[in-house]
Amino acid sequence: MDIEAYLSQKKKLVDAGLEAILSQEDMPVESLRQGVRHAVFPGGKRIRPILTIAACEAVGGDCPQIVPIACCVELIHSYSLVHDDLPAMDNSDLRRGLPTVHKVVGEGIAVLAGDELLTLAFETLVNLDGIDDRKKVGLIRELARACGTAGLVGGQSLDLEAEIKELEKTAVEEIARRKTAALIESSVGMGAIAGYADDEDVARLQEFGRLAGLAFQIIDDVLDAEGEQEALGKPVRSDKERGKATYPATFGVCESKAYAEKLTDEAIACLGSFGQKAEPLREIARLLSRRKG
Amino acid sequence: MDIEAYLSQKKKLVDAGLEAILSQEDMPVESLRQGVRHAVFPGGKRIRPILTIAACEAVGGDCPQIVPIACCVELIHSYSLVHDDLPAMDNSDLRRGLPTVHKVVGEGIAVLAGDELLTLAFETLVNLDGIDDRKKVGLIRELARACGTAGLVGGQSLDLEAEIKELEKTAVEEIARRKTAALIESSVGMGAIAGYADDEDVARLQEFGRLAGLAFQIIDDVLDAEGEQEALGKPVRSDKERGKATYPATFGVCESKAYAEKLTDEAIACLGSFGQKAEPLREIARLLSRRKG
Repeated sequence: MDIEAYLSQKKKLVDAGLEAILSQEDMPVESLRQGVRHAVFPGGKRIRPILTIAACEAVGGDCPQIVPIACCVELIHSYSLVHDDLPAMDNSDLRRGLPTVHKVVGEGIAVLAGDELLTLAFETLVNLDGIDDRKKVGLIRELARACGTAGLVGGQSLDLEAEIKELEKTAVEEIARRKTAALIESSVGMGAIAGYADDEDVARLQEFGRLAGLAFQIIDDVLDAEGEQEALGKPVRSDKERGKATYPATFGVCESKAYAEKLTDEAIACLGSFGQKAEPLREIARLLSRRKG
Repeated sequence: MDIEAYLSQKKKLVDAGLEAILSQEDMPVESLRQGVRHAVFPGGKRIRPILTIAACEAVGGDCPQIVPIACCVELIHSYSLVHDDLPAMDNSDLRRGLPTVHKVVGEGIAVLAGDELLTLAFETLVNLDGIDDRKKVGLIRELARACGTAGLVGGQSLDLEAEIKELEKTAVEEIARRKTAALIESSVGMGAIAGYADDEDVARLQEFGRLAGLAFQIIDDVLDAEGEQEALGKPVRSDKERGKATYPATFGVCESKAYAEKLTDEAIACLGSFGQKAEPLREIARLLSRRKG
């Protein structure tokens, strides 16, 4: 299959879906509107929502609202970036080659823009037309788990502490699991739930997401470590310099790459029973573990 | 009725419910645990969750999970205080006579503690045992509306802008409606939904909450303006000095008090059809508009 064409087509759907969600919001203040939009557009590769759509396809699901459901994952991802970039957190001035949200609208409105994106994800899910209440509850549960202490908040708080303390090897993996793998697991899980998959298939796809998500974070850290500033569009300070707990800083670049490859193979092995319909998921997992930027 | 005994009894239930919710959370970092707990305990009068319980009683509802449902409103209120107090927002060092969360655990963890409380409210609602999916969806919808641009985020962003610009009189009311009245409306609305009220009764109780919530904010601003530092436990800088848009700064203290009294009467008038069962709601509305601290 032509995975590049697939990704490009789905990205357009996601971008249009995000535009539709944001344009419905009555933003009372121009700076808030600007901050929220800057957090969401132009955005990155939209990998998480594309995984949601691909997971729904993998279970043969036909969900008329799969695009807005997928967009909610991207709203959560965007919120986490806005808050993580704040001076009191990672203190990043650049993201994907552009000034971060707080550099554009100030810190106060940046905090609120993140709060709004987090809220909007749950609000959008709960207000979806044509989705039965059981499915809504399943989707909200799946997304909430990835946001809390087992996910984004837990991972980022561990990461903040890790800048101060020396870390065990297991702790490095724990941060990546919560900070990155949890939301990718939920992205895939939500696609399966949206497609009315049975519990076993949901669990298989969640496991796929967990493993592929961990590989994704390892490669991200490897790319940071290799200093590909232009490709990533963010300033490179080595993780060791910043005292950050990452895979390459702890295990070395070579071992990290091999581990990511192994995780990707394990992830793809979870998809055995889904046949051809899961081919986009397999291709995406391979792409993520071999990307150069 | 003895409203003080009623409030004291319900506050104990709410405090125990909050303790139960927080103790279930696996906090990976001690500072996050500390920040979240400091945001929630000892807390204030717990007026919002008590209104949720009282609204459920007013519709004759018997909901076994009314206490955790009510606690979710308090989690949201706590989150909004943590973020509002941040240096980039209202820059408050004290809250209820104690250091604010960011003074105790630092700004980064304070942002995350707020994010966690916001997430935890939705996660708790969606995972409630013994509540059918339709009711969960209704409760989540009601709470989400109070958090977004029509509620807390919208109100706080208007408030931030109001520190810079001169405000019209209508804008002062708009801020109070979003920042305070929306969550009190939802607190009452959630109690009605939890008690399986019909749509008309939910709407009557929401209107009660909206009016009583507006009165609550006006009296809050009046107390600030009158400078009752000890009673409120926060430092007094006059709203005019801070360039804040409040009722007393715009309309004067005397007119503000009269307006709060009028709103309270209108709120109580919404409860006509509920008879004796709504007596706690009436008493709370009267208390809120006449409190001295």
